[in-house]
Amino acid sequence: MIYADQAATTKMSDAAAECMCSLIREAWGNPSSLYAHGQRAKEVLEQARQDVASVIGAEPKEIIFTSGGSEADNQAILSAAALGRKAGKTHIISTAFEHHAVLHTLKKLEKEGFTVTLLDVHENGLVRPEEVEAAIRDDTCLVTVMYANNEIGTIQPIREIGAVCREKNVLFHTDAVQAVGHIPVNVQEDQIDLLSASAHKFHGPKGVGFLYARKGIRLTNLIEGGAQERGKRAGTENVPGIAAMAAALREANAGMARNAAHMTAMRDRLIEGLSGIPHAALNGDRDHRLPGNVNFCFEGIEGESLLLLLDDRGICASSGSACTSGSLDPSHVLLAIGRVHDVAHGSLRLSIGEDITADQVEEIIRAVSEVVQYLRGFSPIWRDLTAGKKAFIL
Amino acid sequence: MIYADQAATTKMSDAAAECMCSLIREAWGNPSSLYAHGQRAKEVLEQARQDVASVIGAEPKEIIFTSGGSEADNQAILSAAALGRKAGKTHIISTAFEHHAVLHTLKKLEKEGFTVTLLDVHENGLVRPEEVEAAIRDDTCLVTVMYANNEIGTIQPIREIGAVCREKNVLFHTDAVQAVGHIPVNVQEDQIDLLSASAHKFHGPKGVGFLYARKGIRLTNLIEGGAQERGKRAGTENVPGIAAMAAALREANAGMARNAAHMTAMRDRLIEGLSGIPHAALNGDRDHRLPGNVNFCFEGIEGESLLLLLDDRGICASSGSACTSGSLDPSHVLLAIGRVHDVAHGSLRLSIGEDITADQVEEIIRAVSEVVQYLRGFSPIWRDLTAGKKAFIL
Repeated sequence: MIYADQAATTKMSDAAAECMCSLIREAWGNPSSLYAHGQRAKEVLEQARQDVASVIGAEPKEIIFTSGGSEADNQAILSAAALGRKAGKTHIISTAFEHHAVLHTLKKLEKEGFTVTLLDVHENGLVRPEEVEAAIRDDTCLVTVMYANNEIGTIQPIREIGAVCREKNVLFHTDAVQAVGHIPVNVQEDQIDLLSASAHKFHGPKGVGFLYARKGIRLTNLIEGGAQERGKRAGTENVPGIAAMAAALREANAGMARNAAHMTAMRDRLIEGLSGIPHAALNGDRDHRLPGNVNFCFEGIEGESLLLLLDDRGICASSGSACTSGSLDPSHVLLAIGRVHDVAHGSLRLSIGEDITADQVEEIIRAVSEVVQYLRGFSPIWRDLTAGKKAFIL
Repeated sequence: MIYADQAATTKMSDAAAECMCSLIREAWGNPSSLYAHGQRAKEVLEQARQDVASVIGAEPKEIIFTSGGSEADNQAILSAAALGRKAGKTHIISTAFEHHAVLHTLKKLEKEGFTVTLLDVHENGLVRPEEVEAAIRDDTCLVTVMYANNEIGTIQPIREIGAVCREKNVLFHTDAVQAVGHIPVNVQEDQIDLLSASAHKFHGPKGVGFLYARKGIRLTNLIEGGAQERGKRAGTENVPGIAAMAAALREANAGMARNAAHMTAMRDRLIEGLSGIPHAALNGDRDHRLPGNVNFCFEGIEGESLLLLLDDRGICASSGSACTSGSLDPSHVLLAIGRVHDVAHGSLRLSIGEDITADQVEEIIRAVSEVVQYLRGFSPIWRDLTAGKKAFIL
């Protein structure tokens, strides 16, 4: 199996898996319990908090552990909205290609009277800081822009956006689910107020994530109950999972430069190879993209068929994000960068990991090239295109 | 170590631990992914859903996996409240000794215009079905009563309350976190509409739970985002954790009768032994209680000191619930059954598991008796009591 869907989920690293599987036997106490067995779990929890905080340049008390990136996104945005409402500010700025955890939360807020401006992400899939600045109004309470897009991998000018928001005194949240553990993220240098991350995107366990909230920002509880996480997130802490997340993050951070160099080389060869397919186009900026992300549109085919045939050849890839794979709608991300429906339907996301080999890359290029050609062989759209009855777009 | 705090958390069973630790290596795909590796994870997920459903008498599609009991409680109550508001019904009935995941959610709803009636749980810690019936008004949208109390272990007349609610056409939610996996729970026979459970209370992993919602009940999302869990709970599913929860639940269910018989015998000996301590009283009904729950008040001592000295002797126990151990307030549960502050402060919860031995029980009785006597030796309250300056309550 060649697993080229790391943006959907990753396998736990050996270090993270061993950490979790030993802690479920050794540190399974309730960290709220007074006795030594509980306090041992609490120490593990607080060490994990320190580790996570230190990787992103935060203080431990600024980290709230959640059940994942979606929960963190929801809580961050609802918290900023609650603070905004208190101050009479009900305008939020975001982008059209955010993850649904952000977009659907914003939809909910619109029903509650908030106004949302979705910024253009342009053809290259990049937000422009000057457009963020221009969109900020007196009643803007939040700017939420993802760190790196989950489908097309474009890395946003987060530091510049952070500077704009700080200067304008507007809270800045970033969904950094695809960035943390993959590229350097520092909440101080980037001037980020709220940040969401998910462990299973960087070889940690599923069901665990964290929310960074700059000190002084009062969070709204999404889950009410016990006094865990400084009263901001109820429920017995998943200590083994949280510690495994910290282990995965430490590991990802330690190997980041080396992994990114290798993945970037592999990514670039993939882009070069797939660009050889006629009427194909890379989605998202060529340079400002995650080391592991390749996303192409191939005119005249259906992405779903492409995926199934690649699966037959042992290649795991996706078309759009995994979260929305049940839907037949074309990717909202590809529509946001201006791809028309027909073209957006023929998309392929390859998200590679640090263990990808040059041979695997060549195999992917060969397989995709052959499968695209094969599918075009009986595609009515492709027939119309080649017969000149329809104009090529790509 | 004698672990007598099973109500706070349990150690994962070998079966659950092995399930989780093998699946993180074998079924780590994203269940939303189309390729075989993702679909394998989906199969594991759906098998877990079937298993969980079948144990509680539900249909698979009535089970939503959550990050734990608190999340499930929050979602259940907010969902019923949203349905109520739509129908112009904003009255909720609950009890004074619910878990904070319930009580704090109700507090939030009160701020949003809901009216909450908290029923008396009387001296024995039992809700009376006729009082539920009497409290139901035309505008009542929800009755939420826990299956078994987490501190004093009293098992509520859930079936009778379910019948009342069904007859009156009011939704019935039960926080069954302490019941599922320990005593028989059947949502059909009990006429339950919404039920919350938590895996780590029955030897499953932390960070996993589930919400049962009878078909036809429209849930409100707590976490917005992807279309997972039929669009009702966003976030990549924690497949290994969910499967481990199902494994733990199957195991707990299979061994329930045998375990309950043993635990009940051990519990009864504990109650008998601790009743020999002067000025001590059992909290909660003597008979309608969980097989593993013992809860006493000892006049003239501080529960916290008792716990710390028991810990020195290798016994893990608690005073009140773990979730609120950070607080200096006396247990709201003990206050609800009429214990005065001074007495409530001197409480001890022992929650034993199926592996407790008769020798360990004797050791607990000995240790508690000695530590209570020791602490009373320098307690100013005890001095006043024995000098007749203050009247004994117990």
